[in-house]
Amino acid sequence: MKKWVYAFADGDGKDKTLLGGKGANLCEMTQIGLNVPPGFVITTEACLHYLDSADQQMPAEVMEQVREEMARVEKATGKRFGDPQNPLLVSVRSGSAMSMPGMMDTILNLGLNNETLQGEIEQTGDARFGYDAYRRFIQLFGKVAMGVSDELFDAEFEAVKQAARVTEDVGLSAEDLQEISERFLSVFEQNTGRPFPQDPYEQIEIAIKAVFNSWMGKRAVDYRREFNITPQMANGTAVNICTMVFGNRGDDSATGVAFTRNPGTGENRLFGEYLVNAQGEDVVAGIRTPKPIDKLDQEMPEMARQLAELRDRLENHYKEVQDFEFTIEKGTLYCLQTRNGKMNATAMVRSSVDMVHEKLISKKQGLLRINPDHLEQMLYPRLDTNVRVDPVAQGLPASPGAAVGQAVFDADRAEQLGKDMSMKVILVREETKPEDIHGFFAAQGILTSRGGKTSHAAVVARGMGKPCVAGAEGIRVDVARREAYVGDHVIKEGDLITIDGSNGNVYFGEIDTVEPEFTNELNQLLKWADNKSYLRVMANADTPEDAERALKFGAKGIGLCRTERMFNAVERLPIVIEMIVADSLEERQAALDKLLPIQRADFRKLFETMAPLPVTIRLLDPPIHEFLPTENQLEDEIENLRHLKNSVRGLDVLASSMLLLKEMNTEGEAIPDIVDINLVEKAIETKEMMLRKVRALTEVNPMLGHRGVRLGITYPEIYRMQIRAILEAEAECAAKDLEVHPQMMVPQVCSAEELKWVRRYVDEIKAEVEADTGHKLNCRFGTMIEVVRACMRADSLAKQAEFFSFGTNDLTQATFSFSREDAENKFLPMYNQNLILRDNPFEVLDSKGVGKLMKLALQWGREVKPDMSFGICGEHGGHPASIEFCHQAGLNYVSCSGPRVPVARLAAAHAALNNS
Amino acid sequence: MKKWVYAFADGDGKDKTLLGGKGANLCEMTQIGLNVPPGFVITTEACLHYLDSADQQMPAEVMEQVREEMARVEKATGKRFGDPQNPLLVSVRSGSAMSMPGMMDTILNLGLNNETLQGEIEQTGDARFGYDAYRRFIQLFGKVAMGVSDELFDAEFEAVKQAARVTEDVGLSAEDLQEISERFLSVFEQNTGRPFPQDPYEQIEIAIKAVFNSWMGKRAVDYRREFNITPQMANGTAVNICTMVFGNRGDDSATGVAFTRNPGTGENRLFGEYLVNAQGEDVVAGIRTPKPIDKLDQEMPEMARQLAELRDRLENHYKEVQDFEFTIEKGTLYCLQTRNGKMNATAMVRSSVDMVHEKLISKKQGLLRINPDHLEQMLYPRLDTNVRVDPVAQGLPASPGAAVGQAVFDADRAEQLGKDMSMKVILVREETKPEDIHGFFAAQGILTSRGGKTSHAAVVARGMGKPCVAGAEGIRVDVARREAYVGDHVIKEGDLITIDGSNGNVYFGEIDTVEPEFTNELNQLLKWADNKSYLRVMANADTPEDAERALKFGAKGIGLCRTERMFNAVERLPIVIEMIVADSLEERQAALDKLLPIQRADFRKLFETMAPLPVTIRLLDPPIHEFLPTENQLEDEIENLRHLKNSVRGLDVLASSMLLLKEMNTEGEAIPDIVDINLVEKAIETKEMMLRKVRALTEVNPMLGHRGVRLGITYPEIYRMQIRAILEAEAECAAKDLEVHPQMMVPQVCSAEELKWVRRYVDEIKAEVEADTGHKLNCRFGTMIEVVRACMRADSLAKQAEFFSFGTNDLTQATFSFSREDAENKFLPMYNQNLILRDNPFEVLDSKGVGKLMKLALQWGREVKPDMSFGICGEHGGHPASIEFCHQAGLNYVSCSGPRVPVARLAAAHAALNNS
Repeated sequence: MKKWVYAFADGDGKDKTLLGGKGANLCEMTQIGLNVPPGFVITTEACLHYLDSADQQMPAEVMEQVREEMARVEKATGKRFGDPQNPLLVSVRSGSAMSMPGMMDTILNLGLNNETLQGEIEQTGDARFGYDAYRRFIQLFGKVAMGVSDELFDAEFEAVKQAARVTEDVGLSAEDLQEISERFLSVFEQNTGRPFPQDPYEQIEIAIKAVFNSWMGKRAVDYRREFNITPQMANGTAVNICTMVFGNRGDDSATGVAFTRNPGTGENRLFGEYLVNAQGEDVVAGIRTPKPIDKLDQEMPEMARQLAELRDRLENHYKEVQDFEFTIEKGTLYCLQTRNGKMNATAMVRSSVDMVHEKLISKKQGLLRINPDHLEQMLYPRLDTNVRVDPVAQGLPASPGAAVGQAVFDADRAEQLGKDMSMKVILVREETKPEDIHGFFAAQGILTSRGGKTSHAAVVARGMGKPCVAGAEGIRVDVARREAYVGDHVIKEGDLITIDGSNGNVYFGEIDTVEPEFTNELNQLLKWADNKSYLRVMANADTPEDAERALKFGAKGIGLCRTERMFNAVERLPIVIEMIVADSLEERQAALDKLLPIQRADFRKLFETMAPLPVTIRLLDPPIHEFLPTENQLEDEIENLRHLKNSVRGLDVLASSMLLLKEMNTEGEAIPDIVDINLVEKAIETKEMMLRKVRALTEVNPMLGHRGVRLGITYPEIYRMQIRAILEAEAECAAKDLEVHPQMMVPQVCSAEELKWVRRYVDEIKAEVEADTGHKLNCRFGTMIEVVRACMRADSLAKQAEFFSFGTNDLTQATFSFSREDAENKFLPMYNQNLILRDNPFEVLDSKGVGKLMKLALQWGREVKPDMSFGICGEHGGHPASIEFCHQAGLNYVSCSGPRVPVARLAAAHAALNNS
Repeated sequence: MKKWVYAFADGDGKDKTLLGGKGANLCEMTQIGLNVPPGFVITTEACLHYLDSADQQMPAEVMEQVREEMARVEKATGKRFGDPQNPLLVSVRSGSAMSMPGMMDTILNLGLNNETLQGEIEQTGDARFGYDAYRRFIQLFGKVAMGVSDELFDAEFEAVKQAARVTEDVGLSAEDLQEISERFLSVFEQNTGRPFPQDPYEQIEIAIKAVFNSWMGKRAVDYRREFNITPQMANGTAVNICTMVFGNRGDDSATGVAFTRNPGTGENRLFGEYLVNAQGEDVVAGIRTPKPIDKLDQEMPEMARQLAELRDRLENHYKEVQDFEFTIEKGTLYCLQTRNGKMNATAMVRSSVDMVHEKLISKKQGLLRINPDHLEQMLYPRLDTNVRVDPVAQGLPASPGAAVGQAVFDADRAEQLGKDMSMKVILVREETKPEDIHGFFAAQGILTSRGGKTSHAAVVARGMGKPCVAGAEGIRVDVARREAYVGDHVIKEGDLITIDGSNGNVYFGEIDTVEPEFTNELNQLLKWADNKSYLRVMANADTPEDAERALKFGAKGIGLCRTERMFNAVERLPIVIEMIVADSLEERQAALDKLLPIQRADFRKLFETMAPLPVTIRLLDPPIHEFLPTENQLEDEIENLRHLKNSVRGLDVLASSMLLLKEMNTEGEAIPDIVDINLVEKAIETKEMMLRKVRALTEVNPMLGHRGVRLGITYPEIYRMQIRAILEAEAECAAKDLEVHPQMMVPQVCSAEELKWVRRYVDEIKAEVEADTGHKLNCRFGTMIEVVRACMRADSLAKQAEFFSFGTNDLTQATFSFSREDAENKFLPMYNQNLILRDNPFEVLDSKGVGKLMKLALQWGREVKPDMSFGICGEHGGHPASIEFCHQAGLNYVSCSGPRVPVARLAAAHAALNNS
């Protein structure tokens, strides 16, 4: 005979498929010796069998086995199901292999009827308790098993309350509750067309069928469709029948919930609360204030001792912090439920380290129980979760972390207030440009009303580790008036605002933030992680400050230094523009000669900061027109200047300058003392020249344009300057006997010839620098793999390079033919929503497309050079799933933004532990 | 003893490595029985041996063998080398395995000295001949073997001419020439420090060494480096020693050149010219006018008979039209040289077909001897090559063929003159836009001053098969003045100009053009080609007219119909714009409802034209903003309208409209009778609305933007309309019992989910149309493979598609991360020049990168669906090298523009024949 029903003492605690999650859990708890009220599970197979049957008949065997198991429960409890003297009451719960919230409510107190009720009252000596239990059972059974509307019961309940003139339920007497029970029985009969079943076995059979039927109910079916729960994941529901225990049986009874450790701090100490003489739902309802668990020591010392024992047993068995429910019925402690405790990152880290030290878990377990992404919480300031305020606008979460400050609307003002006057400011702009960079340095955070996650503001803020909300379209900025508008509201300069770059929210006023904490425990944990990892975690860092931060986060080198960030600094940009607009090689060289010592110093500082770790410098990548103002900007400026010129010409010079002085003041521009028409004309000329250059450099598809190595080959003097700066910086370090490991890499490469070409510059300049300084240089030479063709030609590129670094941002764009900025604004959300693409490939590495290409490149590259070092320095380098892919594919390192380094270190350990 | 020297009668005619090209050729000619003057070849091995020797000594054996072979020549000719009575004279020529023009000049008449000269004079009875031969020998030997400057000899020559008071060389007497010979001997002695060598064997040894040394001379080394000639291709030079024969020995002597067939027409008849009593160089010098070869019949009938025999022997042996040189010395016909004749495409085609019919060659040989690219000559009008005029400007060869017409500067005027008045016009524009399309139809050709090979003008002209020169930057167009400027020149409307779209040249005035000819022979040849091919050649065609032309060119179906071309037609564009700017689904649907019958009629006509061949329709591909005016255009229009509004407001309405009437007239715009301010305001509103839409649709990288299937999924109503139009058109054909084979394909696909999505539309609409019409529909469903990820996911895409068509234009852009428009303007020319990339990958399929991807896609696709049909419909589909790649990779078809179809058909045959 098939076994359809398992006692908690018999079922396999691992077999969630058969017993459901809850059922398996109750079996496991019982079998490890916890005092679980006795009970049994009816299997999911019984459910499927029932649903498949033509006439929806329960197999006769099922009810037979229910009776057998009930007999065992009766023996264990000394009560009898349906016994008018000492009745056994049970709860009936659904439970499938996957947790599916709200599938079917629990029925409590099943087994009560007009007769057993009296037995229960006699046994407890508490009529009020008895009637209260009965009326609850009738309502739950009516609603859950028979579909009688709650409202019908509630109306009767209210009527009795009114008649009794009480406002709170606790004010109702035993008689009132008896009255309610009787009315409920009538409601039941009127609405089901049958009297309330008095036979407990009839009750239980109806309840079991109701649970089974609920599996195919609309709510459950919709839920499974919505969350893609397949029959492989959960098929049918089990039914859990469990003896009722009551915490409201007097002062020797209680009920409570607890964590085995503090879920806020991770401290190794029981954490929770309880109520004496109460039911579980009283704790939840919040009518009475529960006591902290510490008090139990005084109130019920024996129970407190047993609870401590329970706590140890739970952790010893589950090797995880437990969140459990208990009930004390007349001096007996029962454990009703337990599950892994949900904790914040700080608590997770601390408890991991503690549990390893306590030898409760291994280091591997300690690492694997923490989701790497959650670490990020610990590394950015975040809004205090206790504060609940509605955001006034929402943009894209462009750079994580929260910031509070006074709103300012241009970079100069940000610098003035933020740097010079040490005030906290938030830079609010329509969008930002390279010339706003000093404003970034001075601000706590950035808020823009236009642009996406790859906008200038987003990229720069992420690089600096400052919070940024980008593209908050509800906000209009009026720089001239020093105001911004959100709906009907005005934000004036100086008004406090708060932004949360982790979710894109913008708030008026100051919201408390919680500062990040890089704890000793975190350091300890990440050291263990590093020991388990195969992948080396490096950081993307563009400045010595970035590098210092990266070191603090435990980066093992710099995997990507974007030299264009150095070009964008406010005092350098004019020289860079000079270089770009140069008409002759001589002019360009003159500008480059000014940049050389600046870049050399940049690189030297980076090398010094990181010594002896490697520093990987990418030669100039973006198209040069990115450093120039836009066509529209220049056209506006020229128009303004022409206007100025005409005014100057038409009026007396002084008068006009006074006039302009006023006009310009409203725009917050610098004011010349006297307007010299010659200067104006010269300015017009310069701007027009720049406009011509901008137009000449305009590209249809800049992403696929004249950039990277293509620029380095057509304007060799630019790359030669950078290569010289790197090598001279290395030589300067060598002169100080500092061990440094510089690496340079070439972006946008598609053929080996390009690498050869650049390599020739390197060889030649290296020979010169070595001859000039007398130091042997060791700078390594590598290439980005970010063009699809570079993957295809990895074999031939491998002959020219000492290392490969996958640039998965660009590679993803080219592989999908998606321009990130266009895609994320126009169709990608719709694609993700409709599961045409499951993930945003710019956030989660697309292993089936981009990843497949990478694997081919790895294979072909290593065929030529088996020990070739492969890395990744796209944004994917900081994302756990992508890191796991990198580990599996056989990469050597990942490089990501500084604050993602801890996340990546843990993810790298996970990857190694899960794939060994 | 090693053999260093081979008689013409002994050497292996195929061993160019050993004997050089010329030497091997002379051996072959001799051995097939042609009357070649006797001689021998000194091998390239002797050359290398000599150059390797420490002291540059000729191996003694070499000169020994030269003497032996000379003895055989003496025996054959009855003359003796150095014989004062009857001297043997020889020529000495270099000759390596590869033809290397100008490596070393020939030395003629070697063997003459003061003594043998007298013998020669006695033998010929012609003192003038003798001294002329001697002075030539001295100069050539002096210059070529000893490096004495030509100028020194020429000065003496001129001095004697002046003294003799003659202007032409022929005026010189025997005595003058004797004087010259003596002066030349002195020049030689003065400049070499030694007397002119009198021993013929000393002469020949010096000459041989000079030839050997020339192999390492600067000119030769540079040439080999420049053209990448490796030692594997040619190593060392041979020396050819050949008996001198003279066509200037009297009226029974002559010299000439001939083709075995007419190189202009291919006619099977000897074609050439000759001069009686003349030397070869006289024919070249053009002093005397040679006679057509026909005349020889009358002048020397026996010689004419022998020449006809020679011609047969040549063609029978070489199986190719020969271009040969002959000399008749005193009634004996010698053949001095022969090579394959260079002919135009028409002649190549005709001679191939004739030679096959004559059973001289096989069909395979007949096909393989014609370079497919050359066929293009026959398919476009071309400039008469006899006319030599300098171009006034040059642009990009954007669409091949030549055209002559009156310059017009806007599309309306082009239509007016070209269509309504049937004049030939060339549309000259800065750049063209979709709204110019009616001008294209009316014009003979298009000339633009901006844009590249993928500009609107280029793409549309190529599609129409009209000549186009694009981006001729030297030309400025002033539409308002109806003039264009090239340097100082003005082109006024109506001025005749000529453009050559095959090379990008622009000419003033009318240059004669030669019309294309699709001859019977070409048809015959291409039929043979089709029989040998594996690849099926289809055409890209967007209209029924295109389709008819494609049929004429022998296309076996349409591989790509770009529906956006249909959208661009002048009467449809407004409806398309209506659809794009629609704010609601209803408005958009209303516009689509207007487009549906138009598209359905388009498709039906295409199907009818091509029935029963397949017609492949690509669903809408470009981003929709391409159909809208640009931001700048709209801004200008709005400004103009505002200006108009202000004028109207400020002045009396009628007066202002008169004013505007004048203003607008200069711009050639339509003139309203009365300007209604309400209409103007409404127009402003409309334009502003459109401007907002244009801005909203703007993309950073349109190539990677919201287009193709991404559009089809986000605006399903557009694709649904097109799918319905295709299926209803099929049903209409079915109703007429016409067998048609429509195919639809989806552009820009990157994942199988996208295909599933579109397939759902198809299945649903197909069921509807079938139900409505009662006809079973068979339209096939396929996908473009033009996104890199589509290649990576070919296995999963194969499950959703019935055929794959590689879009190599887009695939190349994505694989290289090159935007074609940007690359071709900015860095690609430099890349090609410096061999960083050998070819422009947009013209020649990049087999190592793009091709490798394609092969992976083929492999993975066929693993899932072994009989999957693969094609290519990028521009590469019409290029022979790419077609060979497609054949090797295992594609099933190529599709290219109509006029490339014949080229592709021949190339497909070549691919099959060369790879079987």
